[in-house]
Amino acid sequence: MKSAPGLTLLDAADEAGVDIKSDCGGKQTCGKCKIKVEEGIENLSSPTSKERDELGDTLEQGYRLACASKVSGNVLVTVPDESRRGKQVILTEGLEVGIEINPSVKKYRMELDAPSLANDIPDFERIAKFLNNEYGVEVNEVMPSTLRSLPRTLRDKMGRYEKTFTATTLDGKLIKLEKGHREEYYGIAIDIGTTTDVAYLTDMRTGEVVAITSMMNPQVKYGEDVMRRVTMSFSEEDGLEKLRTAIVDGLNSLIDDAVEEAGISKDDVMEITIVGNTGMHNLFTGIHAEFVSKSPYVQAIGHSINLTPQQAGLDIYEDGNVHVLPTIAGWMGADTIGCLITTTPYEQEETQLMIDVGTNGELVLGNKDKMIGASCAAGPALEGAHVSYGMRAAPGAIQYVRIDPSTYKPKLDIIGDEPARGLCGSGIIDVVAEMVRTGILQQNGRFNKDLETDRIRKSKSSQGNEYVLVWADESGIDKDIVVTLKDVREVQLAKGAIRAGAGILMEEFGVESIDEIALAGAFGNYIDPTSALIIGLFPEIERDRVKMVGNAAGIGARLALVDEKKRKEADWLVDKVKYLRLAALEDFDMEFAKAQWFPHMKKEELYPNYDKILALREEEGEF
Amino acid sequence: MKSAPGLTLLDAADEAGVDIKSDCGGKQTCGKCKIKVEEGIENLSSPTSKERDELGDTLEQGYRLACASKVSGNVLVTVPDESRRGKQVILTEGLEVGIEINPSVKKYRMELDAPSLANDIPDFERIAKFLNNEYGVEVNEVMPSTLRSLPRTLRDKMGRYEKTFTATTLDGKLIKLEKGHREEYYGIAIDIGTTTDVAYLTDMRTGEVVAITSMMNPQVKYGEDVMRRVTMSFSEEDGLEKLRTAIVDGLNSLIDDAVEEAGISKDDVMEITIVGNTGMHNLFTGIHAEFVSKSPYVQAIGHSINLTPQQAGLDIYEDGNVHVLPTIAGWMGADTIGCLITTTPYEQEETQLMIDVGTNGELVLGNKDKMIGASCAAGPALEGAHVSYGMRAAPGAIQYVRIDPSTYKPKLDIIGDEPARGLCGSGIIDVVAEMVRTGILQQNGRFNKDLETDRIRKSKSSQGNEYVLVWADESGIDKDIVVTLKDVREVQLAKGAIRAGAGILMEEFGVESIDEIALAGAFGNYIDPTSALIIGLFPEIERDRVKMVGNAAGIGARLALVDEKKRKEADWLVDKVKYLRLAALEDFDMEFAKAQWFPHMKKEELYPNYDKILALREEEGEF
Repeated sequence: MKSAPGLTLLDAADEAGVDIKSDCGGKQTCGKCKIKVEEGIENLSSPTSKERDELGDTLEQGYRLACASKVSGNVLVTVPDESRRGKQVILTEGLEVGIEINPSVKKYRMELDAPSLANDIPDFERIAKFLNNEYGVEVNEVMPSTLRSLPRTLRDKMGRYEKTFTATTLDGKLIKLEKGHREEYYGIAIDIGTTTDVAYLTDMRTGEVVAITSMMNPQVKYGEDVMRRVTMSFSEEDGLEKLRTAIVDGLNSLIDDAVEEAGISKDDVMEITIVGNTGMHNLFTGIHAEFVSKSPYVQAIGHSINLTPQQAGLDIYEDGNVHVLPTIAGWMGADTIGCLITTTPYEQEETQLMIDVGTNGELVLGNKDKMIGASCAAGPALEGAHVSYGMRAAPGAIQYVRIDPSTYKPKLDIIGDEPARGLCGSGIIDVVAEMVRTGILQQNGRFNKDLETDRIRKSKSSQGNEYVLVWADESGIDKDIVVTLKDVREVQLAKGAIRAGAGILMEEFGVESIDEIALAGAFGNYIDPTSALIIGLFPEIERDRVKMVGNAAGIGARLALVDEKKRKEADWLVDKVKYLRLAALEDFDMEFAKAQWFPHMKKEELYPNYDKILALREEEGEF
Repeated sequence: MKSAPGLTLLDAADEAGVDIKSDCGGKQTCGKCKIKVEEGIENLSSPTSKERDELGDTLEQGYRLACASKVSGNVLVTVPDESRRGKQVILTEGLEVGIEINPSVKKYRMELDAPSLANDIPDFERIAKFLNNEYGVEVNEVMPSTLRSLPRTLRDKMGRYEKTFTATTLDGKLIKLEKGHREEYYGIAIDIGTTTDVAYLTDMRTGEVVAITSMMNPQVKYGEDVMRRVTMSFSEEDGLEKLRTAIVDGLNSLIDDAVEEAGISKDDVMEITIVGNTGMHNLFTGIHAEFVSKSPYVQAIGHSINLTPQQAGLDIYEDGNVHVLPTIAGWMGADTIGCLITTTPYEQEETQLMIDVGTNGELVLGNKDKMIGASCAAGPALEGAHVSYGMRAAPGAIQYVRIDPSTYKPKLDIIGDEPARGLCGSGIIDVVAEMVRTGILQQNGRFNKDLETDRIRKSKSSQGNEYVLVWADESGIDKDIVVTLKDVREVQLAKGAIRAGAGILMEEFGVESIDEIALAGAFGNYIDPTSALIIGLFPEIERDRVKMVGNAAGIGARLALVDEKKRKEADWLVDKVKYLRLAALEDFDMEFAKAQWFPHMKKEELYPNYDKILALREEEGEF
């Protein structure tokens, strides 16, 4: 983090938009603003005596109080979860997906005959024969550490063969043998997000998630966006190893926490499935990522990868497996694959447009005949970043907005029982949609100057006008919360990129309308679909044909964990989805410009029923 | 080693029959008798000042001079190769086996098209597609570290795709990618013997052995025979780990030496194949070996095992493979499999009796229709141990003997240009055969007391008579070298066990004679077949139907390294060879007793042409 010399880390963080807790207001007494210095500790002022008291031994590990540390140069810090203001709201359930339980890792009850001089086939072959005879399973390999203890596991302390055992297999390999009949076993589906990592500890017998843990991606300290990290991985010495270690350590702590929360043994975690964009995929698996980030953006591998826990660096059952889902292209990764095996356009006649909303938006238009995908740099506006009062979906965030079309007075839905502190992603979309619906904004995104209300005024902080959503005396930050012309522009760029991508995919696919939209993304479930329709985030469609599928990437990882058919579908998708490089298309810029209007410059042609959409809001009534 | 207190280690070693170098005669001046103390250093006298001068820093690592260290209790020592008297003679070539070069690990030259925006399939898939199109090879996996560097290996420093590459594959996996066309690669076939380990560094393009290294099995310090080590592996704490570490470290030094001798890079060693008896197999792979050593002697696994170099602990190319050949039974291991894929009885109409001579003799009788195997505890007499003047095949060892039938004076063939110091295995067989032929020994193994010669006399050291082979003034040890009645008994026990096993296999197989004998074993090539026929080591057969196949186990490991068909044959043999447990058979003891006679108690019935065999020696003339 760079900042003006002399500021404290707390001030510098505030300037940079990073939320750090501080109950005492920077007086070095509450100890809540504890942060960890990763690099550049020499550019901080010496620890104060209050810091020494507060931090004790942790001072030596690099911890400091942000309010006490004055900055004189570049410093790299990590903000521990407990020092972050507010806890992130995690979407635990998106779409209800019918899960079929048929995992790659399977357990089998066995009743083995004891060997004798007349029946002396070896231990492993005895197991393989039983599994083949009783279950029709072909097992022809055994993992080394399972093999090493095989003879002892099969016998009691007196050396007598026991009768009942449980075998665990994966892809023709025996990976575990247990005495007695023991059905219990677990897997973990992991979604490595650029910003947030989530682990779903799953009971493999039922598919039920028994613990969810999440954390900020520890790589964030090296750069917020994927490209910065990928560039670091090949341009800095040990860059890749630093990034890999950061994510691997992070995932291990997610695993530890999940296992502890569920009260199970780590040795019962037999498999991990992993989704993430291609950058996250490469930085986790340790693949040299320079060339996937440069034209022609070729991945090192498309298909799925299996690693031993040791190769992956993850601490679960040692003969278990880490399955990394495949990637379609440099800018269309295992996260999109995860979404697709969740929304399954390839199983239906009707066309589906799957949109994974994020800083990079991924779109796939398809049905059982074909699928075409594209990705677009939507920017972070739809996630609540890069807008004046954007914030994460934490307490104090405005998540829904309704504006009275005659008074222009808003009604707000705020997370938690607190005064408003800013807008999260769904709030941004809502307020802009309401500004469009009530005429505060024109179709081209400019403010309507003819309205008589003190809520519309010339902006103090940026060019153009602004709309006052919350007056300072009602807000939790002692300032007016406003939406500026610049904020509206950010939303236009984001929604324009997605809408242009959708339009080009439709043209390429050869359809003039689509039958279904599946809206994915960590916050996909929170977007108000009517608002999305009003701003023209996607092509015109019936309101009830828009499905919110939540964190479909994570759901995909869970599906691949418990249903081996889903893994095959995932690998099949690599070759099946045709990836379209939007930036390479001649007419993209023109499409992009037109798509930035609300809902579109070609409104009459593309949104013939736009009035009905606007009317939906009135039908819906209050929230 | 246990010894009378007060003796030096050098004396104690001499008593125990361990040869340690000492040029100065125990005066602590030559420094040649350096040994390493593994356990029980507290039972040795304190280092003398001469030792301190001689040993310097190595004293702290446990090295001592054997001549200076007085023993007061149990001590476990290792004698380094350079401190052993004489170097072992290694059999480098046995049977000339026609080697087919079609290894599991293969190299392919590739000419890849550079990717472009229009041709953007991923790096790995590009390689897999090329290999499939050009060579019909299915490659669907890639080893992790190869994958990690794939993008960089494919491109030059400017990020441009190069054109020519070399891919190395194994069982559908890409395990290496190199720039340019590079045909060179190597494998190592390893024979883990109970006593001696041999490594054959092999050029995989030609099958040619480019370096051979060997050493005493470092586990010997824990016990000379297999059973003692196996028992230690499960009865002592960390026993298995100690034994495993000993052999793994030993093999790594064999690999180091071989690679250095050939002047190649360890990164070019792509695969290792391993043979050894079931005990050695288990102690190397780290399998719990308690139950394979107890009735019903069931192995942990019969079929072959593949390990990563890391799992095996062997230091070769990291994405390479360690292939451990299969075992047939607890007492019939991967060494016997190695012999069989060398002598290939299953490819012929004629019956073959394969005998692998060693402390444990393994026999397989078979042809293309069926194969039956058995093992017998022959004891070490045929290897030159447990006989009064037995020694290894080192300089000074008598390897062949002819006795004049009228004077009873012997002619000797001695290894190296030295006076005789003892008898190696082939010498023992020769001298006993000659004693039988010349009538010194009767058919039942007793001395003929009616012969008039001072070479036959009452033994001074044991019961019964003895034959003086070398008088003290002609010997290199200032003592008469004699063959005692007890020595003859040892040979009778050894040859009786093998001959009884062969008889029982023939009965079980349903034949009265066999068409061919393949004699294997580290010293198999050195046995004089006529002598073997004279003592009745195996059933009567034409002299020219006895093939000496040398270290067939090691040859088998080499075949499995360069010809993948041989690996399939090896795994097929596991189920194909019927293993007969001799000790469990009612008539074994009786057969064993009869077979101890020269050539057999049922000589008239089983050796109708015995006179012709005796006459062979005269036809052969002098050696």
